[in-house]
Amino acid sequence: MDVLVIGGCGFIGSHVVDTLHARGHSLRVLDRNPERFRRPVPGVAYTKHDLTKAPLPSKVLSDVEVVVHLASTTVPATSNLDPGADIAENLIPTVHLLEAMRQQGTRRLVFLSSGGAVYGVPQSDPISEDHPLNPVSSYGVVKMAIEKYVLMEHRLHGLSYVTLRASNPYGPRQGHTGVQGVISTYLWRHLRNEPIEIWGDGSVVRDFLHVRDLAELCARSVVSLENGVFNAGSGEGVSIAQIIEIIGRVVEKKIAPTYRPGRDFDVPRVVLDVARAETAFRWQRSIHLLQGIEETWGWVRQQVRLSEPDLKLID
Amino acid sequence: MDVLVIGGCGFIGSHVVDTLHARGHSLRVLDRNPERFRRPVPGVAYTKHDLTKAPLPSKVLSDVEVVVHLASTTVPATSNLDPGADIAENLIPTVHLLEAMRQQGTRRLVFLSSGGAVYGVPQSDPISEDHPLNPVSSYGVVKMAIEKYVLMEHRLHGLSYVTLRASNPYGPRQGHTGVQGVISTYLWRHLRNEPIEIWGDGSVVRDFLHVRDLAELCARSVVSLENGVFNAGSGEGVSIAQIIEIIGRVVEKKIAPTYRPGRDFDVPRVVLDVARAETAFRWQRSIHLLQGIEETWGWVRQQVRLSEPDLKLID
Repeated sequence: MDVLVIGGCGFIGSHVVDTLHARGHSLRVLDRNPERFRRPVPGVAYTKHDLTKAPLPSKVLSDVEVVVHLASTTVPATSNLDPGADIAENLIPTVHLLEAMRQQGTRRLVFLSSGGAVYGVPQSDPISEDHPLNPVSSYGVVKMAIEKYVLMEHRLHGLSYVTLRASNPYGPRQGHTGVQGVISTYLWRHLRNEPIEIWGDGSVVRDFLHVRDLAELCARSVVSLENGVFNAGSGEGVSIAQIIEIIGRVVEKKIAPTYRPGRDFDVPRVVLDVARAETAFRWQRSIHLLQGIEETWGWVRQQVRLSEPDLKLID
Repeated sequence: MDVLVIGGCGFIGSHVVDTLHARGHSLRVLDRNPERFRRPVPGVAYTKHDLTKAPLPSKVLSDVEVVVHLASTTVPATSNLDPGADIAENLIPTVHLLEAMRQQGTRRLVFLSSGGAVYGVPQSDPISEDHPLNPVSSYGVVKMAIEKYVLMEHRLHGLSYVTLRASNPYGPRQGHTGVQGVISTYLWRHLRNEPIEIWGDGSVVRDFLHVRDLAELCARSVVSLENGVFNAGSGEGVSIAQIIEIIGRVVEKKIAPTYRPGRDFDVPRVVLDVARAETAFRWQRSIHLLQGIEETWGWVRQQVRLSEPDLKLID
C-alpha cells in the first residue's frame, strides 16, 4: 500500500518505516528533522517539512492510502510549560491534516496517542480503553482532543482509523536528552559515568514496550480494517527500581541512583490492558524486557563509540 | 465578591450579570461586543476586549476573586466549518486565561461547558456527568478539552472550579440569527411571518432551561466551595414538535413548519440528569417551559416593535 509516515524520522517512526518497508509497502516520510541515528532508507521518499509552520503540501498526500501520524513536538514533562504552544503545534496541525485527508480522499489513519498520558491517575489496574480520560499534562489533553477529532471524522465523514494508546516505548534509536524514556536515558548516563536520577522513590510503575513490538502493531493497524482505540503496551507493570536492577544485570555493575523529589505529573502506576489489541490484530509483544534492554545497551555503546571515540567510558 | 464575567454582554452573560448584581457582588465584564439588547448595567465595569486577538490585560484580573467564563466564538452548527479556528479562538485563549489567573492569584473559576455537545450520541437517558465524552462537533471537543485543562489546573495548582454543562438555554435576549436557540429563532420568525424550519422530522428531543434558571445556578456556583462538573438542564426532554405545539398555544396560532433534512451533528435525544447540581447547590429550575416561552414571546414582540416600528407583523 501507499503509506505516508508523519514523524517517520523519529524514534518510533524509524522503526515503523523499517517494519512497513520490510513488508513491501510504498513509503513516504514527512518529518521536520532528518534521520538522526542512521542514513535515510533507500526506496523511501523523504519530505522535510514542519507542520507547525506550514500546512501539509497537498502533493504529499496524492495517491496515499494510509497515513500513520506519529509526530509530536512535546512530551508530557515539557508540555505543561506552554500549553498554548502545545495546542498550536500539535492539535491544530492535526485537524488540518484530517481536512487535507478528506479533500484528497485518503481514508485511513493510524494515530499514535498515549496510554501513559490520556488516562491520568488510574482508577483501575490494568487500564482498559474504556477508562475515563483525565490527563494531568497538556500532552495528554492534546492527545485526547486529537482522538476525539479523529472519532468525529470517522462518524461524520467515514474516516477509517486506528488510534494506538502507546505505553512507554523503549529500544534502539531512542534519544538521551532525559525528557523521554528512562531506559535509554539511564543507559546513556551510565555509559558516560553520569549520575542516574530517579524522580521519587523508584516505586513508580510503568508498562514498557519494545519499539519494534509497537512498530509491528502499527504495521498491522495499517493493513487492518479495524476502527477504534487500542492500548499498545506490554500489559506488564515494572517499577523504576526494577528497571535499575535489570540495567545493573545487563551492564554487570550495581547502579546507585540519586533520588530526586517526585514530579506532580507523574502518576504512580500505569499498566495497560492490551487484550483488545491482541485480539483485533492477532498481535502479542515478542521482546521481553531483559532481552530488549540488552539490545538497547549494545546499541547505546555502539553509538557512543561512533560519535565520541575519545570519550572516557565506564567500561 | 469581586467577580469578572467573561462574555458578560452575551445572551447568558447578561442574565448572569443581572443575577450577580442583584446579590450585591462587585462586577467586571469583559466582552468583545457591547450589550446588545439593553444599556450597560450601572455600577458594572465593562472592558471591551477580544481574547482571540490579544491576551487578557492583567489589570482586569487584579483583585478579582472569581472568574465566570462564558465566552465562545462558535456554536455547534458552525464549529465544524473550521475546527482549527475554533481551537485557536476558544481553547488557546482559555489556557492562557488559566495561566493569567494562576499568576494573579485568582483561584476560582466557573466555566460554562455544553451538555448538548460534550457527550455526543447518548448511551443512557438521562445523561449523567459520568457519561463518556464523544463529541460530534468541534465545539464539543473544544469544550471538553477546556474542561480537562480546568481539571488539570485544579489538580496541579489548586484552582477551585465549577464546570456547568448547560443544556439548551432559552429566554429573553437570545438572538435570532438561526444558528442557536430554536425557541427564540421560531418566535422571531413567526413574528416576521417567515417560514419555521425543522431540521429532521421534529422528533429530536432536547432539554430546555430558562436562562434565568441557568444564571441562578451560575451565581450559586460563584459563591459555593464545590469543585466539579455539573449538568445544568431541566432534566426534562421536550421534542422540537412539542416546542412547535407550545409556541402555537402561546402565539394563539397553529404553526405549520417546513421540514428540512436532518443534520449530521444533531444527536436524537439529549436530556441531562441534573441531580448532582440540585443536591450540591440546593438549586432547582423554577421557570417551566410554557411560562418561559410566553415571557420570551413578549420580549421578542417588544424588541421588534422597538427596532423595526414599520415592519408588518403577523399579529
